[in-house]
Amino acid sequence: MGDLGRLPVGIIGASGYGGVQLVRLLMDHPGVEVVYLGGDSSAGKAYSELYPHLGHCVDLTIEPIDLDLVASRCQAVFLSLPNGLAYQMAPTLLAKGCKVLDLSADYRFKNLETYKVWYGGDRQDQETSALAVYGLPELYRDRIAEAQLVGCPGCYVTTSLLALAPLLKQGLIVPETAIIDAKSGTSGAGRTAKTNLLLSEADNSLAPYGVARHRHIPEIEQICSDLAGHEVMVQFTPHLIPMVRGLLATVYATLRDPGLVREDLITIYSAFYRASPFIRILPAGTYPQTKWACGTNVCYIGVEVDPRTDRAIIMSVTDNLIKGQAGQAIQCLNLMMGWEETLGLPQLGFYP
Amino acid sequence: MGDLGRLPVGIIGASGYGGVQLVRLLMDHPGVEVVYLGGDSSAGKAYSELYPHLGHCVDLTIEPIDLDLVASRCQAVFLSLPNGLAYQMAPTLLAKGCKVLDLSADYRFKNLETYKVWYGGDRQDQETSALAVYGLPELYRDRIAEAQLVGCPGCYVTTSLLALAPLLKQGLIVPETAIIDAKSGTSGAGRTAKTNLLLSEADNSLAPYGVARHRHIPEIEQICSDLAGHEVMVQFTPHLIPMVRGLLATVYATLRDPGLVREDLITIYSAFYRASPFIRILPAGTYPQTKWACGTNVCYIGVEVDPRTDRAIIMSVTDNLIKGQAGQAIQCLNLMMGWEETLGLPQLGFYP
Amino acid sequence: MGDLGRLPVGIIGASGYGGVQLVRLLMDHPGVEVVYLGGDSSAGKAYSELYPHLGHCVDLTIEPIDLDLVASRCQAVFLSLPNGLAYQMAPTLLAKGCKVLDLSADYRFKNLETYKVWYGGDRQDQETSALAVYGLPELYRDRIAEAQLVGCPGCYVTTSLLALAPLLKQGLIVPETAIIDAKSGTSGAGRTAKTNLLLSEADNSLAPYGVARHRHIPEIEQICSDLAGHEVMVQFTPHLIPMVRGLLATVYATLRDPGLVREDLITIYSAFYRASPFIRILPAGTYPQTKWACGTNVCYIGVEVDPRTDRAIIMSVTDNLIKGQAGQAIQCLNLMMGWEETLGLPQLGFYP
Amino acid sequence: MGDLGRLPVGIIGASGYGGVQLVRLLMDHPGVEVVYLGGDSSAGKAYSELYPHLGHCVDLTIEPIDLDLVASRCQAVFLSLPNGLAYQMAPTLLAKGCKVLDLSADYRFKNLETYKVWYGGDRQDQETSALAVYGLPELYRDRIAEAQLVGCPGCYVTTSLLALAPLLKQGLIVPETAIIDAKSGTSGAGRTAKTNLLLSEADNSLAPYGVARHRHIPEIEQICSDLAGHEVMVQFTPHLIPMVRGLLATVYATLRDPGLVREDLITIYSAFYRASPFIRILPAGTYPQTKWACGTNVCYIGVEVDPRTDRAIIMSVTDNLIKGQAGQAIQCLNLMMGWEETLGLPQLGFYP
Repeated sequence: MGDLGRLPVGIIGASGYGGVQLVRLLMDHPGVEVVYLGGDSSAGKAYSELYPHLGHCVDLTIEPIDLDLVASRCQAVFLSLPNGLAYQMAPTLLAKGCKVLDLSADYRFKNLETYKVWYGGDRQDQETSALAVYGLPELYRDRIAEAQLVGCPGCYVTTSLLALAPLLKQGLIVPETAIIDAKSGTSGAGRTAKTNLLLSEADNSLAPYGVARHRHIPEIEQICSDLAGHEVMVQFTPHLIPMVRGLLATVYATLRDPGLVREDLITIYSAFYRASPFIRILPAGTYPQTKWACGTNVCYIGVEVDPRTDRAIIMSVTDNLIKGQAGQAIQCLNLMMGWEETLGLPQLGFYP
Repeated sequence: MGDLGRLPVGIIGASGYGGVQLVRLLMDHPGVEVVYLGGDSSAGKAYSELYPHLGHCVDLTIEPIDLDLVASRCQAVFLSLPNGLAYQMAPTLLAKGCKVLDLSADYRFKNLETYKVWYGGDRQDQETSALAVYGLPELYRDRIAEAQLVGCPGCYVTTSLLALAPLLKQGLIVPETAIIDAKSGTSGAGRTAKTNLLLSEADNSLAPYGVARHRHIPEIEQICSDLAGHEVMVQFTPHLIPMVRGLLATVYATLRDPGLVREDLITIYSAFYRASPFIRILPAGTYPQTKWACGTNVCYIGVEVDPRTDRAIIMSVTDNLIKGQAGQAIQCLNLMMGWEETLGLPQLGFYP
Repeated sequence: MGDLGRLPVGIIGASGYGGVQLVRLLMDHPGVEVVYLGGDSSAGKAYSELYPHLGHCVDLTIEPIDLDLVASRCQAVFLSLPNGLAYQMAPTLLAKGCKVLDLSADYRFKNLETYKVWYGGDRQDQETSALAVYGLPELYRDRIAEAQLVGCPGCYVTTSLLALAPLLKQGLIVPETAIIDAKSGTSGAGRTAKTNLLLSEADNSLAPYGVARHRHIPEIEQICSDLAGHEVMVQFTPHLIPMVRGLLATVYATLRDPGLVREDLITIYSAFYRASPFIRILPAGTYPQTKWACGTNVCYIGVEVDPRTDRAIIMSVTDNLIKGQAGQAIQCLNLMMGWEETLGLPQLGFYP
Repeated sequence: MGDLGRLPVGIIGASGYGGVQLVRLLMDHPGVEVVYLGGDSSAGKAYSELYPHLGHCVDLTIEPIDLDLVASRCQAVFLSLPNGLAYQMAPTLLAKGCKVLDLSADYRFKNLETYKVWYGGDRQDQETSALAVYGLPELYRDRIAEAQLVGCPGCYVTTSLLALAPLLKQGLIVPETAIIDAKSGTSGAGRTAKTNLLLSEADNSLAPYGVARHRHIPEIEQICSDLAGHEVMVQFTPHLIPMVRGLLATVYATLRDPGLVREDLITIYSAFYRASPFIRILPAGTYPQTKWACGTNVCYIGVEVDPRTDRAIIMSVTDNLIKGQAGQAIQCLNLMMGWEETLGLPQLGFYP
């Protein structure tokens, strides 16, 4: 079962946008073979019923979720499920020797109490949870390479952290001044039909949501605090943008040293990410647009300094479903397997 | 209850897009006061919960559907409900003296058997149904003026018929050659959340549906046959377009007389619609775009003749929610009340 | 020339989006008659050549710009021109007794030196310029009522200032913490064909521009300083959003008094704008979306307080071409004429 | 110059959308190395000035067009220029031994008189022109494999012909009944800034153009006639759709044999295209949407029969810039080189 030499992998939760990106990306991945697609509500359906355009390429059927079967067939498993389900499955899969990459929030928090405050439930799995590594390769590459269980961050958090990390790690900003004004296409909200995501409602409109109380805030702050070496509190406001894919984080923060100019920051960012093949620091005066990143695992970052206000303004863009979701999980798998980090991941989109 | 001299009207089914257009248009209508909004699933909610932007303008609450109450309070009632409900309500309202304007398919068919084939159900109300007038003012103005019950056509059918009517009425085309290739924004499908209407799915895409078997076909053919004076069969293909509002029908038909040129057709169309204040026949060589009609009750029509193929190509555009739905119903009410046909109806949109 | 009792007005620069909004809005205005449309590049063309959908409603031809002629025919003149032209025309029109409403930047600055730094040119008209009143009625209603010359602010500045004004006027925030992250549809950039505004480039994308150095910054700071009673410096970042109309300003500022909650701010904002018929303060927990404002002269404002960071987050939306441009100019004219402030201005858009 | 074993190719006209697709696709093509980008207006610019997102991947500069230089460096040359330029360059390139793939209309016509009627100019190059092969591999695979000069069809014609070819070749329809109602995203119109292509104008709108007189008509008819074995005349109407990429042709034609059902046509289409790796015939009742094809060289085809009207309704979709332009040219090159037809061409897009 599986081509000689290819890693047999499974996807639990294959019917949503995260699932279909994984399927699509893994079909072009030379080291992997998808041998299992699982899902409860779609069990028994051919995958091409859900996504007819894949009819000539994907010859798999959604199977019921049977963890023993999954573990017997797969050496690595992607969990692409609503929050609160992965932690009920991962321990079994790990115990049977599978590597597990979770795309939900379940394994992103060091402190389960924080998870419970924002996501509810009554988790007692501190032990398994403590094994999980935060799946942002640009920040935790070495630890991911050693991990059996990875909790991959989502699109908003990934894009925001990639913008903020060099500033916090180098102590260049006053942390409590950090404001993240983030803007996302609608696909980040998934394939479930909701009124506010209808084209009729969302097109030609623009709206903030979750203001001051979005549950990505504690996750961003956890990593920012880790980078800064002390507790950090940030402002984060997400906005729904009338487009399918793409995410932009516009990040504002006051510089500690008002003498820094944007060329300094470009140098600092380029050095910080010199070993990160998916990060592109833009030249001075060039700001990113989301379309550049679409269809790729790349994050473009533009940096600016306002000498009048002594603020750094960092703008980062990603494809929310690739670098912000499925692509990043595959990037983690590449590291976990000791493969080239870029293996099977697109670096160049189509424009326009 | 109701301003002196204003007609008290009610809307049953006020929560959808048809409902909110009616509310919006009637607020600017000098002859009418909305005194009742009804709906079962939203009963008890302030209307501004459903549409917060109306919070400062509409001070009405959705009430349960109680036909006695409605009839006691209203002299005219708009029914903006899913197909199959209006015919259960209209008889009661009519019996109590209300004028009824139905926006569903329930009262569009002369022959209830046709209705049952395409919409199902087991209607026995041939008597009431026979009283209904087809609510397309440009074709049935005089009969609407006398009616107590009007079955208003929807967006696809209205726009298609306005394009075809002069050709059929004057016997200018070979009827069985008529092909209607129609394109609509997503709002025509209503506010109910469905996966294929999500911005993520529908934006930057384009798709035909209901090919060769859409249930608007018998309705179009009924009116075409009435215009032609004999049975007519047409081809009709709807397409979903990545935009909110607007509908274009591109209509092809072979001319009986190959000597006709487009200027002839412009003359014929202008004459046919000379008493129709919402129809705009475009000058030779100008074709309509849907945006022109948005926010108005106007139908723009461009005509072309291909001298190589002897075909007429007629292009008509409307705002699917106004001329294709709520505005047309109000236009009918104006006629039924003996008011100016254009009263309270927008003729000029915002561009771009 | 002109209906008895209607004010004869002219529009110089009628071919662009500002011009067509003025034409459209003034056609519904009961106190005004448009008697002159002027423009050099389009002189001699029927207006319906530029905007065919107006063919049945507007029977005017673009005339060459002849100020004597304009002044002889009009009692009020709207200038809707690129920056740097209005100040060459307004003195002549004023001298001949016309009221002048300028939609460009020419008359927005108290200090001509500031204008020259950001817009260039070698203006010497300090005298005329000193007569100009800043055309934001919610802040300068009384002065506009007395003015002969009004310099109307544009979409970004209007929407930003309406969000910030109560905070600054009441001294509730630390002014230098104010950050305006603004997002606009493409129509704000006008009708001139530019590559980055093509649908192919701008659709399904999102981009910041003019970061840290946009020329709206000095204008915003001028009014903020006036409100605060001392020099204020703000951060302002505009973004291009893939939609036609609509503008959202997301404004962040640190509260002086950390005890304030959002309900306090709602009370303060409601009081501040109690005499402003176009401002809608939203209930607690409701945030605006741009679509609500489309086709209206209304500004919706949502307020939030983050008790963790002690920041106020104010979100304001407008239709960039109406409240952000043409509608606001007409609102100013209404005040200058002693008419009802809302005369002829739409308060209710179509949704969706 | 050029990797050992890779074919050195050049692109003249690299700055437009056709050019950037070629650059993008050829970077992933294992058999080719791009060694020259040419263009007059952009000569001297780094390619990443035109397309900043390629800054980290493409290290080429646009060079002036010097045919001797091009021929000395390249073994195959793509011409991606406005109509009327290729025929002035191709003879020189051919004479020096280059293979030439032209993306303009210059080499699509067997009869230069037809070209001159629709495209103007005073061409006398019948000799070179006679060598050109029409670059639609699904119809002329063998001849392309032998060609030195290929005139590749564009998006509208490709998508229309792929829908019509089996019907015409097998004599299944009455040819003069064929109507092609085609709908395209805006990128088909190129990157040159035009008012009607601005997002502000084209978004949320929909418009027909070139009705009855588009210059793709003679090209479609030339190939249809070749397939049918006699002169064929078709109706073709293009429409501009508010989306970036994607093209749908909805094709109507009366069947000669009214006994055919859609399953028959599916069998016939599948057989006709059995050796065509980029054609996907959809199962009965499934209709294509353009998004499926985006980012790929694939054409999806859905077929339907209306038993009431005896018409076949064929719906074909492509990515207008790939199968409709650059991808198809590369597919031709693959054939000309004797490579696998699919080499380096994407078969799977990202969804949504």
